[in-house]
Amino acid sequence: MHIIKSIRGLQAWRRKHENHKIGFVPTMGALHEGHLSLIRHACKHCSTVVVSIFVNPLQFGPGEDLSRYPRPVKSDQQLCRDAGVDLLFWPSSQEFYPQDFQTLVKVHRLSQRWEGEARPTHFEGVTTVVTKLLCLVRPDRCYLGQKDYQQLLVIKQLVQDLNIDTTIVRCPTIREADGLALSSRNRYLSANQRIQATSLFTALQQGVQAIKQGATNVWAIQSRMQKVLKKYPGIKIEYLAVCDAKSLDQLSQVKGEVVLMGAIQIGNVHLIDNILVKALKKS
Amino acid sequence: MHIIKSIRGLQAWRRKHENHKIGFVPTMGALHEGHLSLIRHACKHCSTVVVSIFVNPLQFGPGEDLSRYPRPVKSDQQLCRDAGVDLLFWPSSQEFYPQDFQTLVKVHRLSQRWEGEARPTHFEGVTTVVTKLLCLVRPDRCYLGQKDYQQLLVIKQLVQDLNIDTTIVRCPTIREADGLALSSRNRYLSANQRIQATSLFTALQQGVQAIKQGATNVWAIQSRMQKVLKKYPGIKIEYLAVCDAKSLDQLSQVKGEVVLMGAIQIGNVHLIDNILVKALKKS
Repeated sequence: MHIIKSIRGLQAWRRKHENHKIGFVPTMGALHEGHLSLIRHACKHCSTVVVSIFVNPLQFGPGEDLSRYPRPVKSDQQLCRDAGVDLLFWPSSQEFYPQDFQTLVKVHRLSQRWEGEARPTHFEGVTTVVTKLLCLVRPDRCYLGQKDYQQLLVIKQLVQDLNIDTTIVRCPTIREADGLALSSRNRYLSANQRIQATSLFTALQQGVQAIKQGATNVWAIQSRMQKVLKKYPGIKIEYLAVCDAKSLDQLSQVKGEVVLMGAIQIGNVHLIDNILVKALKKS
Repeated sequence: MHIIKSIRGLQAWRRKHENHKIGFVPTMGALHEGHLSLIRHACKHCSTVVVSIFVNPLQFGPGEDLSRYPRPVKSDQQLCRDAGVDLLFWPSSQEFYPQDFQTLVKVHRLSQRWEGEARPTHFEGVTTVVTKLLCLVRPDRCYLGQKDYQQLLVIKQLVQDLNIDTTIVRCPTIREADGLALSSRNRYLSANQRIQATSLFTALQQGVQAIKQGATNVWAIQSRMQKVLKKYPGIKIEYLAVCDAKSLDQLSQVKGEVVLMGAIQIGNVHLIDNILVKALKKS
């Protein structure tokens, strides 16, 4: 496995691999089974697999966890090596955002809701870093997890709108045995918080069950989900929504493919999760 | 010469030309000797030359000349053919900006001054369309005229900030015999306005002359330039500035490489021009 830490080095590498089919997994490191499953998907379908590790300061708001975000350098490298990654791109913040850096890429409508409301500058940080990485790596396929569902849609929109020649591949959310979606932020949770955290997935599952039983009134479905979370006074619900799976418009009636999305705050840990589900056909 | 009018067609073409050295001249059509000189530069240094013609609605403000902007389709095609262009990319607005389009690319500091003040959403329209075109064409070199000097710097910054793998090549401004910089908008001028229009270049030349004679006080240089333009009551000065040639910061003392930039309004025609000049070394 090559490790490249400079933009110029990456550009030279990329030119040499002009005829390879390149799969790309962008990450912020602190790799877990979720990232590894993305890497496995990439290895299966591409001749050359690139992983980037970059804790992108631009996507953290003031007061968020940029400085304490985990950076287990050695073990991340080993995990990539063991997973069969061909190239690990690990740029420095100084090179990635030099002093005169002044360009932002913004996906307007899709970025402004849900996570965008909770974290106002988050998505423009994401779309800017992803545009840079896609221009550098020029992958045939870019693998993203469903766990960050809104991010996935925002990046799909970005790639479509800017005509970036990459296919975005959605991979399933990887979960702990008790259902908690894997996240690098789970390690912030205390033992007690960790137990409460599973209730987000439980709530979403309750919503799915309701829909599968034929419920269509979103207000009723949301109440049922809220009830699960309200058992825990330590949990602050940021949003809990039933949306159209493509536009992320909040629905009043369940129709077509929908996504149940939730974000909660436990202590100062921000956790998100979602489930996709198809509405029952009217009989 | 191929003419391609769809994004999908362009993408297929681009894949087939993976190993060519591609030179690119983005235009809004209404081609004149300025564009043709860019095409000649491209032909000289690249194996394959792509020209795009797209009157980009995103870079026109409300009340600007989008609808009346000249579109001489047949003669533009012939000019490209005669100039030895390999591919003419001529997309439709509908395909380029579909209904759900929602992504904007913005270069912040450099875009906000001068032309950016006169035309507040102009540069985000330019940087968005150029990002799309560069992602589609993926040229090795992209040829731009010095006439739109701020635009040139903004695009250079964009390419650097987003790590787009293209070299921006600056080509000299082409002028009429009397000094007027070529522009597709010159055809809007009446005979009388046409005569007055040359005074912009005359004013900038006066500034250059002052600097070459050792003037360093920008206020004095600006007055000298203004004096030329104030002879014509039909001319409204939008700005007339002596700036650092890299940052476009307004200077108070001439130092290093500077750009004299001006924009005027004659009737409802907006004209710009600039000259680069090096300050005399202190003796």
